[in-house]
Amino acid sequence: MNTKVGEVFRTRVLSGVVIAFLSLGLLILCHIIPLLLPLLVSLLVVQGLLEFYLPFKNKGVFPSKYLGIFFALLLVWQTYFGLEEYLSLNLILMFTLIPIFQFIKSGKLPDFIALGVTCLGVLYLGLLPSFFLKIRNLLGSINYLIFLIFVTWSGDTFAYFTGKLRGRRKLIALISPNKTIEGSLGGILFTIITALLLGEMGRYFGYLEITWVKASDYLILGLLIAVVGQIGDLYQSAWKRYLGMKDSGNLIPEHGGILDRIDSILFAAPLFYYYFLWLSP
Amino acid sequence: MNTKVGEVFRTRVLSGVVIAFLSLGLLILCHIIPLLLPLLVSLLVVQGLLEFYLPFKNKGVFPSKYLGIFFALLLVWQTYFGLEEYLSLNLILMFTLIPIFQFIKSGKLPDFIALGVTCLGVLYLGLLPSFFLKIRNLLGSINYLIFLIFVTWSGDTFAYFTGKLRGRRKLIALISPNKTIEGSLGGILFTIITALLLGEMGRYFGYLEITWVKASDYLILGLLIAVVGQIGDLYQSAWKRYLGMKDSGNLIPEHGGILDRIDSILFAAPLFYYYFLWLSP
Repeated sequence: MNTKVGEVFRTRVLSGVVIAFLSLGLLILCHIIPLLLPLLVSLLVVQGLLEFYLPFKNKGVFPSKYLGIFFALLLVWQTYFGLEEYLSLNLILMFTLIPIFQFIKSGKLPDFIALGVTCLGVLYLGLLPSFFLKIRNLLGSINYLIFLIFVTWSGDTFAYFTGKLRGRRKLIALISPNKTIEGSLGGILFTIITALLLGEMGRYFGYLEITWVKASDYLILGLLIAVVGQIGDLYQSAWKRYLGMKDSGNLIPEHGGILDRIDSILFAAPLFYYYFLWLSP
Repeated sequence: MNTKVGEVFRTRVLSGVVIAFLSLGLLILCHIIPLLLPLLVSLLVVQGLLEFYLPFKNKGVFPSKYLGIFFALLLVWQTYFGLEEYLSLNLILMFTLIPIFQFIKSGKLPDFIALGVTCLGVLYLGLLPSFFLKIRNLLGSINYLIFLIFVTWSGDTFAYFTGKLRGRRKLIALISPNKTIEGSLGGILFTIITALLLGEMGRYFGYLEITWVKASDYLILGLLIAVVGQIGDLYQSAWKRYLGMKDSGNLIPEHGGILDRIDSILFAAPLFYYYFLWLSP
Protein backbone atom coordinates (compact mmCIF):
# COMPACT_ATOMS: atom_id res chain seq x y z
CA MET A 1 0.00 0.00 0.00
CA ASN A 2 1.66 3.28 -1.01
CA THR A 3 1.44 6.48 1.04
CA LYS A 4 -1.37 8.10 -1.06
CA VAL A 5 -3.58 5.01 -0.82
CA GLY A 6 -2.75 4.63 2.85
CA GLU A 7 -3.77 8.23 3.53
CA VAL A 8 -7.06 7.88 1.63
CA PHE A 9 -7.71 4.68 3.56
CA ARG A 10 -6.95 6.29 6.92
CA THR A 11 -9.21 9.28 6.13
CA ARG A 12 -12.00 6.91 5.14
CA VAL A 13 -11.75 4.85 8.33
CA LEU A 14 -11.51 7.98 10.47
CA SER A 15 -14.56 9.58 8.79
CA GLY A 16 -16.45 6.33 9.24
CA VAL A 17 -15.69 6.15 12.96
CA VAL A 18 -16.62 9.83 13.43
CA ILE A 19 -19.94 9.34 11.57
CA ALA A 20 -20.72 6.20 13.58
CA PHE A 21 -20.15 7.91 16.95
CA LEU A 22 -21.92 11.09 15.83
CA SER A 23 -24.91 9.07 14.63
CA LEU A 24 -25.06 7.02 17.82
CA GLY A 25 -24.90 10.21 19.93
CA LEU A 26 -27.61 11.90 17.86
CA LEU A 27 -29.85 8.82 17.99
CA ILE A 28 -29.52 8.63 21.77
CA LEU A 29 -30.44 12.33 21.90
CA CYS A 30 -33.49 11.49 19.73
CA HIS A 31 -34.49 9.06 22.46
CA ILE A 32 -34.55 11.93 24.96
CA ILE A 33 -36.00 14.62 22.63
CA PRO A 34 -38.66 12.98 20.41
CA LEU A 35 -38.91 15.99 18.07
CA LEU A 36 -35.23 15.64 17.16
CA LEU A 37 -35.76 12.59 14.92
CA PRO A 38 -38.12 14.28 12.40
CA LEU A 39 -35.79 17.31 12.43
CA LEU A 40 -32.75 15.14 11.60
CA VAL A 41 -34.73 13.27 8.93
CA SER A 42 -35.73 16.66 7.47
CA LEU A 43 -32.08 17.75 7.23
CA LEU A 44 -31.26 14.47 5.54
CA VAL A 45 -34.14 14.97 3.07
CA VAL A 46 -33.01 18.50 2.17
CA GLN A 47 -29.35 17.55 1.67
CA GLY A 48 -30.29 14.29 -0.07
CA LEU A 49 -32.66 15.95 -2.53
CA LEU A 50 -30.17 18.71 -3.39
CA GLU A 51 -27.61 15.99 -4.18
CA PHE A 52 -30.25 14.06 -6.13
CA TYR A 53 -31.67 16.89 -8.26
CA LEU A 54 -28.60 18.91 -9.26
CA PRO A 55 -26.75 16.32 -11.41
CA PHE A 56 -29.76 15.95 -13.72
CA LYS A 57 -28.54 19.18 -15.31
CA ASN A 58 -25.87 16.98 -16.97
CA LYS A 59 -28.73 15.55 -19.04
CA GLY A 60 -30.42 18.92 -19.61
CA VAL A 61 -33.22 18.32 -17.08
CA PHE A 62 -33.93 20.86 -14.35
CA PRO A 63 -36.21 19.54 -11.59
CA SER A 64 -38.08 22.00 -9.33
CA LYS A 65 -35.75 21.45 -6.42
CA TYR A 66 -37.33 23.72 -3.80
CA LEU A 67 -40.87 22.52 -4.49
CA GLY A 68 -39.62 18.93 -4.46
CA ILE A 69 -38.01 19.54 -1.08
CA PHE A 70 -41.23 21.14 0.17
CA PHE A 71 -43.40 18.14 -0.74
CA ALA A 72 -40.82 15.64 0.59
CA LEU A 73 -40.71 17.50 3.92
CA LEU A 74 -44.52 17.61 3.99
CA LEU A 75 -44.47 13.84 3.60
CA VAL A 76 -41.97 13.39 6.44
CA TRP A 77 -43.93 15.56 8.88
CA GLN A 78 -47.20 13.98 7.80
CA THR A 79 -45.69 10.65 8.86
CA TYR A 80 -44.46 12.13 12.14
CA PHE A 81 -47.99 13.29 12.98
CA GLY A 82 -49.48 9.93 11.93
CA LEU A 83 -51.43 11.45 9.01
CA GLU A 84 -50.44 8.75 6.52
CA GLU A 85 -54.00 8.61 5.16
CA TYR A 86 -53.23 11.94 3.45
CA LEU A 87 -50.27 10.52 1.51
CA SER A 88 -52.40 10.36 -1.67
CA LEU A 89 -53.48 13.97 -1.22
CA ASN A 90 -49.88 15.08 -0.75
CA LEU A 91 -48.78 13.28 -3.93
CA ILE A 92 -51.71 14.68 -5.94
CA LEU A 93 -50.99 18.22 -4.75
CA MET A 94 -47.35 17.66 -5.70
CA PHE A 95 -47.90 16.74 -9.34
CA THR A 96 -50.67 19.30 -9.87
CA LEU A 97 -49.30 22.33 -8.01
CA ILE A 98 -45.69 22.11 -9.23
CA PRO A 99 -46.61 22.72 -12.92
CA ILE A 100 -49.06 25.47 -11.87
CA PHE A 101 -46.35 27.24 -9.84
CA GLN A 102 -43.89 26.73 -12.68
CA PHE A 103 -46.31 28.34 -15.14
CA ILE A 104 -47.14 31.27 -12.84
CA LYS A 105 -43.47 31.91 -12.13
CA SER A 106 -42.05 31.66 -15.64
CA GLY A 107 -45.07 32.24 -17.90
CA LYS A 108 -43.82 29.27 -19.95
CA LEU A 109 -45.37 25.84 -20.52
CA PRO A 110 -44.54 23.58 -17.56
CA ASP A 111 -41.82 20.97 -18.20
CA PHE A 112 -43.42 17.57 -17.59
CA ILE A 113 -40.14 15.66 -17.95
CA ALA A 114 -38.57 17.75 -15.18
CA LEU A 115 -41.80 17.21 -13.21
CA GLY A 116 -41.32 13.44 -13.51
CA VAL A 117 -37.78 13.71 -12.11
CA THR A 118 -39.03 16.02 -9.33
CA CYS A 119 -41.67 13.44 -8.37
CA LEU A 120 -39.14 10.60 -8.49
CA GLY A 121 -36.95 12.57 -6.07
CA VAL A 122 -39.85 13.10 -3.66
CA LEU A 123 -40.70 9.39 -3.74
CA TYR A 124 -37.06 8.32 -3.33
CA LEU A 125 -36.00 10.87 -0.72
CA GLY A 126 -39.32 11.57 0.94
CA LEU A 127 -41.01 8.18 1.18
CA LEU A 128 -37.92 6.14 2.11
CA PRO A 129 -36.69 8.45 4.93
CA SER A 130 -40.22 8.64 6.34
CA PHE A 131 -39.82 4.97 7.26
CA PHE A 132 -37.38 5.97 10.00
CA LEU A 133 -40.33 7.68 11.69
CA LYS A 134 -42.69 4.80 10.86
CA ILE A 135 -40.29 2.36 12.54
CA ARG A 136 -40.24 4.42 15.72
CA ASN A 137 -44.04 4.83 15.66
CA LEU A 138 -44.56 1.09 15.17
CA LEU A 139 -42.04 -0.24 17.69
CA GLY A 140 -42.28 2.62 20.16
CA SER A 141 -38.51 2.92 20.60
CA ILE A 142 -35.53 4.43 18.83
CA ASN A 143 -33.40 1.36 19.70
CA TYR A 144 -34.66 -0.60 16.70
CA LEU A 145 -33.56 2.24 14.46
CA ILE A 146 -30.09 2.15 16.05
CA PHE A 147 -30.08 -1.59 15.43
CA LEU A 148 -31.04 -1.13 11.76
CA ILE A 149 -28.45 1.57 11.12
CA PHE A 150 -25.57 -0.28 12.75
CA VAL A 151 -26.41 -3.62 11.17
CA THR A 152 -26.57 -2.00 7.72
CA TRP A 153 -23.35 -0.03 8.17
CA SER A 154 -21.50 -3.06 9.52
CA GLY A 155 -22.61 -4.88 6.36
CA ASP A 156 -21.30 -2.03 4.16
CA THR A 157 -18.02 -1.94 6.07
CA PHE A 158 -17.39 -5.69 6.02
CA ALA A 159 -18.32 -5.86 2.33
CA TYR A 160 -15.69 -3.15 1.73
CA PHE A 161 -12.96 -4.95 3.67
CA THR A 162 -13.78 -8.44 2.36
CA GLY A 163 -13.73 -6.96 -1.13
CA LYS A 164 -10.34 -5.28 -0.53
CA LEU A 165 -8.79 -8.48 0.88
CA ARG A 166 -10.41 -11.26 -1.16
CA GLY A 167 -12.23 -9.52 -4.04
CA ARG A 168 -11.54 -11.08 -7.45
CA ARG A 169 -14.67 -11.46 -9.55
CA LYS A 170 -16.58 -8.28 -10.46
CA LEU A 171 -20.22 -8.16 -9.28
CA ILE A 172 -21.76 -5.91 -12.00
CA ALA A 173 -18.93 -4.03 -13.69
CA LEU A 174 -21.21 -1.70 -15.71
CA ILE A 175 -22.91 -0.28 -12.62
CA SER A 176 -20.14 -0.39 -10.04
CA PRO A 177 -16.64 -1.41 -11.21
CA ASN A 178 -15.21 -1.69 -7.69
CA LYS A 179 -17.71 -4.15 -6.24
CA THR A 180 -16.83 -7.84 -6.20
CA ILE A 181 -18.84 -11.00 -5.60
CA GLU A 182 -16.51 -11.91 -2.72
CA GLY A 183 -17.09 -8.51 -1.09
CA SER A 184 -20.83 -8.89 -1.49
CA LEU A 185 -20.89 -12.37 0.08
CA GLY A 186 -18.61 -11.24 2.93
CA GLY A 187 -20.95 -8.32 3.55
CA ILE A 188 -23.98 -10.61 3.70
CA LEU A 189 -22.27 -13.05 6.08
CA PHE A 190 -21.11 -10.33 8.47
CA THR A 191 -24.47 -8.54 8.38
CA ILE A 192 -26.18 -11.73 9.54
CA ILE A 193 -23.61 -12.18 12.32
CA THR A 194 -23.96 -8.55 13.45
CA ALA A 195 -27.77 -8.77 13.38
CA LEU A 196 -27.73 -11.96 15.47
CA LEU A 197 -25.19 -10.55 17.92
CA LEU A 198 -26.83 -7.14 18.35
CA GLY A 199 -30.31 -8.71 18.45
CA GLU A 200 -29.47 -11.27 21.12
CA MET A 201 -27.45 -8.74 23.14
CA GLY A 202 -30.35 -6.31 22.89
CA ARG A 203 -32.68 -8.95 24.25
CA TYR A 204 -30.28 -9.96 27.02
CA PHE A 205 -29.69 -6.40 28.23
CA GLY A 206 -33.27 -5.36 27.57
CA TYR A 207 -32.56 -2.75 24.90
CA LEU A 208 -34.74 -4.49 22.30
CA GLU A 209 -37.71 -5.35 24.43
CA ILE A 210 -40.15 -6.85 21.91
CA THR A 211 -40.76 -10.44 22.97
CA TRP A 212 -42.08 -11.97 19.76
CA VAL A 213 -38.79 -11.59 17.89
CA LYS A 214 -36.78 -14.83 17.85
CA ALA A 215 -33.09 -15.43 17.05
CA SER A 216 -34.18 -16.85 13.69
CA ASP A 217 -35.93 -13.51 12.95
CA TYR A 218 -32.67 -11.65 13.51
CA LEU A 219 -30.94 -14.10 11.20
CA ILE A 220 -33.55 -13.55 8.46
CA LEU A 221 -33.51 -9.78 9.06
CA GLY A 222 -29.71 -9.75 8.75
CA LEU A 223 -29.87 -11.59 5.44
CA LEU A 224 -32.66 -9.37 4.06
CA ILE A 225 -31.01 -6.14 5.22
CA ALA A 226 -27.72 -7.20 3.60
CA VAL A 227 -29.32 -8.09 0.26
CA VAL A 228 -31.64 -5.07 0.10
CA GLY A 229 -28.87 -2.78 1.37
CA GLN A 230 -26.56 -3.92 -1.41
CA ILE A 231 -29.34 -3.48 -3.98
CA GLY A 232 -29.82 0.06 -2.62
CA ASP A 233 -26.10 0.64 -3.01
CA LEU A 234 -26.17 -0.56 -6.63
CA TYR A 235 -29.29 1.53 -7.31
CA GLN A 236 -27.43 4.60 -6.16
CA SER A 237 -24.36 3.61 -8.24
CA ALA A 238 -26.50 3.12 -11.36
CA TRP A 239 -28.04 6.54 -10.82
CA LYS A 240 -24.61 8.21 -10.42
CA ARG A 241 -23.19 6.41 -13.44
CA TYR A 242 -26.22 7.35 -15.56
CA LEU A 243 -25.62 11.00 -14.70
CA GLY A 244 -21.84 10.66 -15.11
CA MET A 245 -20.67 11.23 -11.52
CA LYS A 246 -18.38 9.47 -9.08
CA ASP A 247 -19.83 10.57 -5.74
CA SER A 248 -23.16 12.22 -4.99
CA GLY A 249 -21.40 15.05 -3.15
CA ASN A 250 -18.45 16.05 -1.01
CA LEU A 251 -20.11 16.34 2.38
CA ILE A 252 -18.05 13.68 4.13
CA PRO A 253 -14.28 13.18 3.40
CA GLU A 254 -13.69 9.97 1.35
CA HIS A 255 -17.35 8.95 1.78
CA GLY A 256 -18.89 11.28 -0.82
CA GLY A 257 -22.25 12.90 -0.19
CA ILE A 258 -25.03 12.02 2.20
CA LEU A 259 -26.66 9.79 -0.44
CA ASP A 260 -23.51 7.65 -0.68
CA ARG A 261 -23.64 7.05 3.05
CA ILE A 262 -27.33 6.37 3.56
CA ASP A 263 -28.35 4.55 0.36
CA SER A 264 -28.31 1.07 1.94
CA ILE A 265 -30.19 2.17 5.07
CA LEU A 266 -32.81 4.00 2.98
CA PHE A 267 -33.74 0.80 1.18
CA ALA A 268 -33.38 -1.42 4.26
CA ALA A 269 -35.75 0.77 6.34
CA PRO A 270 -39.08 -0.13 4.62
CA LEU A 271 -38.10 -3.81 4.60
CA PHE A 272 -37.37 -3.65 8.33
CA TYR A 273 -40.69 -1.89 8.96
CA TYR A 274 -42.80 -4.35 6.98
CA TYR A 275 -41.00 -7.34 8.52
CA PHE A 276 -41.98 -6.18 11.99
CA LEU A 277 -45.47 -5.22 10.82
CA TRP A 278 -46.10 -8.72 9.44
CA LEU A 279 -44.41 -10.37 12.42
CA SER A 280 -46.35 -8.49 15.05
CA PRO A 281 -49.10 -10.58 16.64
CA MET B 1 -71.91 27.95 -39.65
CA ASN B 2 -70.65 26.23 -42.80
CA THR B 3 -71.28 22.57 -43.61
CA LYS B 4 -67.88 21.33 -42.41
CA VAL B 5 -68.16 23.08 -39.04
CA GLY B 6 -71.78 21.96 -38.75
CA GLU B 7 -70.81 18.35 -39.33
CA VAL B 8 -67.97 18.45 -36.78
CA PHE B 9 -70.37 20.00 -34.31
CA ARG B 10 -73.05 17.35 -34.94
CA THR B 11 -70.50 14.52 -34.55
CA ARG B 12 -69.32 16.06 -31.30
CA VAL B 13 -72.79 16.39 -29.81
CA LEU B 14 -73.73 12.89 -30.98
CA SER B 15 -70.55 11.37 -29.51
CA GLY B 16 -71.22 13.26 -26.29
CA VAL B 17 -74.76 11.93 -25.97
CA VAL B 18 -73.62 8.38 -26.74
CA ILE B 19 -70.85 8.58 -24.11
CA ALA B 20 -73.27 9.99 -21.55
CA PHE B 21 -75.83 7.20 -22.03
CA LEU B 22 -73.14 4.54 -22.25
CA SER B 23 -71.54 5.79 -19.03
CA LEU B 24 -74.87 5.95 -17.21
CA GLY B 25 -75.72 2.42 -18.34
CA LEU B 26 -72.32 1.10 -17.28
CA LEU B 27 -72.50 2.85 -13.91
CA ILE B 28 -75.94 1.37 -13.22
CA LEU B 29 -74.48 -2.03 -14.11
CA CYS B 30 -71.66 -1.33 -11.62
CA HIS B 31 -74.37 -0.90 -9.01
CA ILE B 32 -75.56 -4.45 -9.72
CA ILE B 33 -72.13 -6.07 -10.27
CA PRO B 34 -69.67 -4.54 -7.73
CA LEU B 35 -66.62 -6.05 -9.46
CA LEU B 36 -67.43 -4.12 -12.65
CA LEU B 37 -66.25 -0.76 -11.29
CA PRO B 38 -62.60 -1.77 -10.66
CA LEU B 39 -62.61 -3.53 -14.04
CA LEU B 40 -63.81 -0.38 -15.81
CA VAL B 41 -61.33 1.76 -13.87
CA SER B 42 -58.59 -0.69 -14.93
CA LEU B 43 -59.51 -0.30 -18.60
CA LEU B 44 -59.43 3.46 -18.19
CA VAL B 45 -56.00 3.25 -16.52
CA VAL B 46 -54.55 1.12 -19.32
CA GLN B 47 -55.90 3.30 -22.14
CA GLY B 48 -55.09 6.51 -20.24
CA LEU B 49 -51.49 5.49 -19.55
CA LEU B 50 -50.86 4.42 -23.14
CA GLU B 51 -52.10 7.86 -24.25
CA PHE B 52 -49.97 9.50 -21.57
CA TYR B 53 -46.68 7.67 -22.13
CA LEU B 54 -46.40 7.44 -25.94
CA PRO B 55 -46.14 11.18 -26.82
CA PHE B 56 -43.07 11.60 -24.61
CA LYS B 57 -41.14 10.05 -27.52
CA ASN B 58 -41.52 13.49 -29.18
CA LYS B 59 -39.06 14.70 -26.53
CA GLY B 60 -36.82 11.63 -26.79
CA VAL B 61 -38.03 10.07 -23.52
CA PHE B 62 -39.27 6.47 -23.46
CA PRO B 63 -41.12 5.56 -20.26
CA SER B 64 -41.52 1.88 -19.27
CA LYS B 65 -45.14 1.77 -20.33
CA TYR B 66 -46.02 -1.83 -19.43
CA LEU B 67 -44.37 -1.67 -16.00
CA GLY B 68 -46.05 1.69 -15.41
CA ILE B 69 -49.42 0.15 -16.28
CA PHE B 70 -48.66 -2.80 -13.98
CA PHE B 71 -47.97 -0.59 -10.95
CA ALA B 72 -50.95 1.69 -11.68
CA LEU B 73 -53.26 -1.35 -11.86
CA LEU B 74 -51.74 -2.70 -8.65
CA LEU B 75 -52.62 0.62 -7.04
CA VAL B 76 -56.23 0.48 -8.31
CA TRP B 77 -56.83 -3.07 -7.09
CA GLN B 78 -55.09 -2.32 -3.81
CA THR B 79 -57.66 0.43 -3.30
CA TYR B 80 -60.50 -1.91 -4.28
CA PHE B 81 -59.44 -4.41 -1.61
CA GLY B 82 -58.99 -1.62 0.99
CA LEU B 83 -55.22 -2.16 1.28
CA GLU B 84 -54.35 1.53 1.10
CA GLU B 85 -51.80 1.14 3.91
CA TYR B 86 -49.57 -0.56 1.30
CA LEU B 87 -49.56 2.47 -1.01
CA SER B 88 -46.02 3.37 0.16
CA LEU B 89 -44.81 -0.17 -0.48
CA ASN B 90 -46.30 -0.14 -3.98
CA LEU B 91 -44.61 3.17 -4.82
CA ILE B 92 -41.26 2.01 -3.42
CA LEU B 93 -41.41 -1.25 -5.40
CA MET B 94 -42.26 0.83 -8.48
CA PHE B 95 -39.22 3.10 -8.42
CA THR B 96 -36.82 0.33 -7.35
CA LEU B 97 -37.98 -2.60 -9.49
CA ILE B 98 -38.48 -0.69 -12.77
CA PRO B 99 -34.76 0.22 -13.11
CA ILE B 100 -33.77 -3.33 -12.05
CA PHE B 101 -36.04 -4.88 -14.71
CA GLN B 102 -34.76 -2.35 -17.23
CA PHE B 103 -31.16 -3.31 -16.46
CA ILE B 104 -31.83 -7.06 -16.58
CA LYS B 105 -33.74 -6.76 -19.86
CA SER B 106 -31.39 -4.46 -21.77
CA GLY B 107 -28.06 -4.87 -19.96
CA LYS B 108 -27.75 -1.07 -20.16
CA LEU B 109 -27.74 1.54 -17.39
CA PRO B 110 -31.34 2.31 -16.37
CA ASP B 111 -32.74 5.63 -17.64
CA PHE B 112 -33.69 7.65 -14.55
CA ILE B 113 -35.34 10.44 -16.56
CA ALA B 114 -37.69 7.94 -18.23
CA LEU B 115 -38.23 6.44 -14.76
CA GLY B 116 -39.38 9.85 -13.51
CA VAL B 117 -41.93 10.12 -16.33
CA THR B 118 -43.06 6.53 -15.68
CA CYS B 119 -43.63 7.39 -12.00
CA LEU B 120 -45.47 10.59 -12.90
CA GLY B 121 -47.81 8.54 -15.12
CA VAL B 122 -48.52 6.06 -12.32
CA LEU B 123 -49.29 8.90 -9.91
CA TYR B 124 -51.48 10.76 -12.41
CA LEU B 125 -53.31 7.78 -13.92
CA GLY B 126 -53.16 5.37 -11.01
CA LEU B 127 -53.76 7.53 -7.95
CA LEU B 128 -56.47 9.78 -9.42
CA PRO B 129 -58.65 6.96 -10.89
CA SER B 130 -58.37 5.00 -7.63
CA PHE B 131 -60.49 7.75 -6.06
CA PHE B 132 -63.53 6.45 -7.99
CA LEU B 133 -63.22 3.31 -5.86
CA LYS B 134 -62.48 5.30 -2.70
CA ILE B 135 -65.66 7.33 -3.23
CA ARG B 136 -67.76 4.18 -3.51
CA ASN B 137 -66.03 2.64 -0.46
CA LEU B 138 -66.59 5.79 1.60
CA LEU B 139 -70.19 6.54 0.64
CA GLY B 140 -71.31 2.94 0.09
CA SER B 141 -73.10 3.73 -3.16
CA ILE B 142 -72.30 4.27 -6.81
CA ASN B 143 -74.88 7.09 -7.00
CA TYR B 144 -72.45 9.67 -5.71
CA LEU B 145 -70.07 8.70 -8.47
CA ILE B 146 -72.84 9.18 -11.05
CA PHE B 147 -73.53 12.56 -9.45
CA LEU B 148 -69.85 13.56 -9.69
CA ILE B 149 -69.47 12.45 -13.31
CA PHE B 150 -72.61 14.18 -14.55
CA VAL B 151 -71.99 17.40 -12.64
CA THR B 152 -68.45 17.57 -14.05
CA TRP B 153 -69.51 16.79 -17.61
CA SER B 154 -72.38 19.26 -17.49
CA GLY B 155 -69.82 21.87 -16.44
CA ASP B 156 -67.54 20.95 -19.36
CA THR B 157 -70.48 21.05 -21.78
CA PHE B 158 -71.88 24.37 -20.61
CA ALA B 159 -68.40 25.91 -20.58
CA TYR B 160 -68.06 24.80 -24.22
CA PHE B 161 -71.42 26.29 -25.28
CA THR B 162 -71.08 29.50 -23.27
CA GLY B 163 -67.64 29.90 -24.81
CA LYS B 164 -68.98 29.35 -28.34
CA LEU B 165 -71.84 31.83 -27.84
CA ARG B 166 -70.31 34.53 -25.63
CA GLY B 167 -66.57 33.84 -25.57
CA ARG B 168 -64.41 36.91 -26.21
CA ARG B 169 -61.47 37.20 -23.85
CA LYS B 170 -58.91 34.36 -23.89
CA LEU B 171 -58.41 32.58 -20.56
CA ILE B 172 -54.75 31.46 -20.93
CA ALA B 173 -53.85 31.58 -24.62
CA LEU B 174 -50.46 29.85 -24.23
CA ILE B 175 -51.95 26.71 -22.71
CA SER B 176 -55.32 26.49 -24.43
CA PRO B 177 -56.06 29.01 -27.22
CA ASN B 178 -59.76 28.09 -27.51
CA LYS B 179 -60.75 28.63 -23.87
CA THR B 180 -62.32 31.97 -22.90
CA ILE B 181 -63.04 33.67 -19.58
CA GLU B 182 -66.74 33.82 -20.50
CA GLY B 183 -66.81 30.08 -21.18
CA SER B 184 -65.08 29.39 -17.92
CA LEU B 185 -67.50 31.52 -15.89
CA GLY B 186 -70.50 30.02 -17.69
CA GLY B 187 -69.16 26.55 -16.90
CA ILE B 188 -68.80 27.40 -13.21
CA LEU B 189 -72.30 28.87 -12.99
CA PHE B 190 -73.96 25.90 -14.68
CA THR B 191 -71.96 23.37 -12.67
CA ILE B 192 -73.26 24.93 -9.46
CA ILE B 193 -76.84 24.85 -10.80
CA THR B 194 -76.51 21.20 -11.91
CA ALA B 195 -74.97 20.19 -8.57
CA LEU B 196 -77.79 21.88 -6.65
CA LEU B 197 -80.48 20.40 -8.91
CA LEU B 198 -79.08 16.86 -8.98
CA GLY B 199 -78.28 16.98 -5.26
CA GLU B 200 -81.72 18.14 -4.17
CA MET B 201 -83.47 15.78 -6.62
CA GLY B 202 -81.30 12.94 -5.33
CA ARG B 203 -82.34 13.73 -1.77
CA TYR B 204 -86.03 14.09 -2.71
CA PHE B 205 -86.17 10.79 -4.61
CA GLY B 206 -83.84 9.05 -2.18
CA TYR B 207 -80.99 8.36 -4.62
CA LEU B 208 -78.46 10.28 -2.55
CA GLU B 209 -79.36 9.07 0.90
CA ILE B 210 -76.67 10.66 3.08
CA THR B 211 -78.48 12.93 5.52
CA TRP B 212 -75.68 15.24 6.62
CA VAL B 213 -75.31 16.88 3.20
CA LYS B 214 -77.08 20.22 2.98
CA ALA B 215 -78.08 22.27 -0.09
CA SER B 216 -75.21 24.63 0.73
CA ASP B 217 -72.83 21.67 0.51
CA TYR B 218 -74.02 20.92 -3.02
CA LEU B 219 -73.52 24.57 -3.90
CA ILE B 220 -69.95 24.54 -2.56
CA LEU B 221 -69.27 21.15 -4.20
CA GLY B 222 -70.54 22.50 -7.54
CA LEU B 223 -68.23 25.49 -7.30
CA LEU B 224 -65.21 23.41 -6.27
CA ILE B 225 -65.83 20.72 -8.91
CA ALA B 226 -66.10 23.40 -11.61
CA VAL B 227 -62.90 25.17 -10.61
CA VAL B 228 -60.86 21.99 -10.06
CA GLY B 229 -62.33 20.41 -13.20
CA GLN B 230 -61.24 23.39 -15.29
CA ILE B 231 -57.78 23.30 -13.71
CA GLY B 232 -57.64 19.60 -14.63
CA ASP B 233 -58.62 20.50 -18.17
CA LEU B 234 -55.87 23.13 -18.40
CA TYR B 235 -53.36 20.71 -16.84
CA GLN B 236 -54.12 18.25 -19.60
CA SER B 237 -53.89 21.00 -22.24
CA ALA B 238 -50.51 22.16 -20.92
CA TRP B 239 -49.26 18.59 -21.07
CA LYS B 240 -50.45 18.13 -24.67
CA ARG B 241 -49.01 21.45 -25.76
CA TYR B 242 -45.68 20.69 -24.09
CA LEU B 243 -45.50 17.46 -26.11
CA GLY B 244 -46.79 19.14 -29.28
CA MET B 245 -50.16 17.42 -29.70
CA LYS B 246 -53.75 18.49 -30.25
CA ASP B 247 -55.66 15.56 -28.73
CA SER B 248 -54.42 12.79 -26.49
CA GLY B 249 -55.81 10.18 -28.89
CA ASN B 250 -58.54 9.28 -31.40
CA LEU B 251 -60.66 6.95 -29.31
CA ILE B 252 -63.87 9.01 -29.47
CA PRO B 253 -64.91 10.98 -32.63
CA GLU B 254 -64.44 14.74 -32.10
CA HIS B 255 -63.64 14.22 -28.40
CA GLY B 256 -60.05 13.00 -28.78
CA GLY B 257 -58.70 10.31 -26.49
CA ILE B 258 -59.90 9.04 -23.15
CA LEU B 259 -57.69 11.57 -21.33
CA ASP B 260 -59.45 14.47 -23.11
CA ARG B 261 -62.77 13.20 -21.84
CA ILE B 262 -61.95 12.33 -18.25
CA ASP B 263 -59.37 14.97 -17.29
CA SER B 264 -61.83 17.14 -15.33
CA ILE B 265 -63.40 14.18 -13.51
CA LEU B 266 -59.98 12.78 -12.60
CA PHE B 267 -59.08 15.96 -10.75
CA ALA B 268 -62.57 16.50 -9.30
CA ALA B 269 -62.70 12.97 -7.81
CA PRO B 270 -60.17 13.42 -4.95
CA LEU B 271 -61.70 16.78 -4.09
CA PHE B 272 -65.16 15.19 -3.92
CA TYR B 273 -63.78 12.36 -1.76
CA TYR B 274 -62.02 14.62 0.72
CA TYR B 275 -65.01 16.97 0.93
CA PHE B 276 -67.22 14.09 2.04
CA LEU B 277 -64.51 12.71 4.30
CA TRP B 278 -64.17 16.02 6.15
CA LEU B 279 -67.94 16.59 6.17
CA SER B 280 -68.80 13.16 7.56
CA PRO B 281 -69.74 13.26 11.23
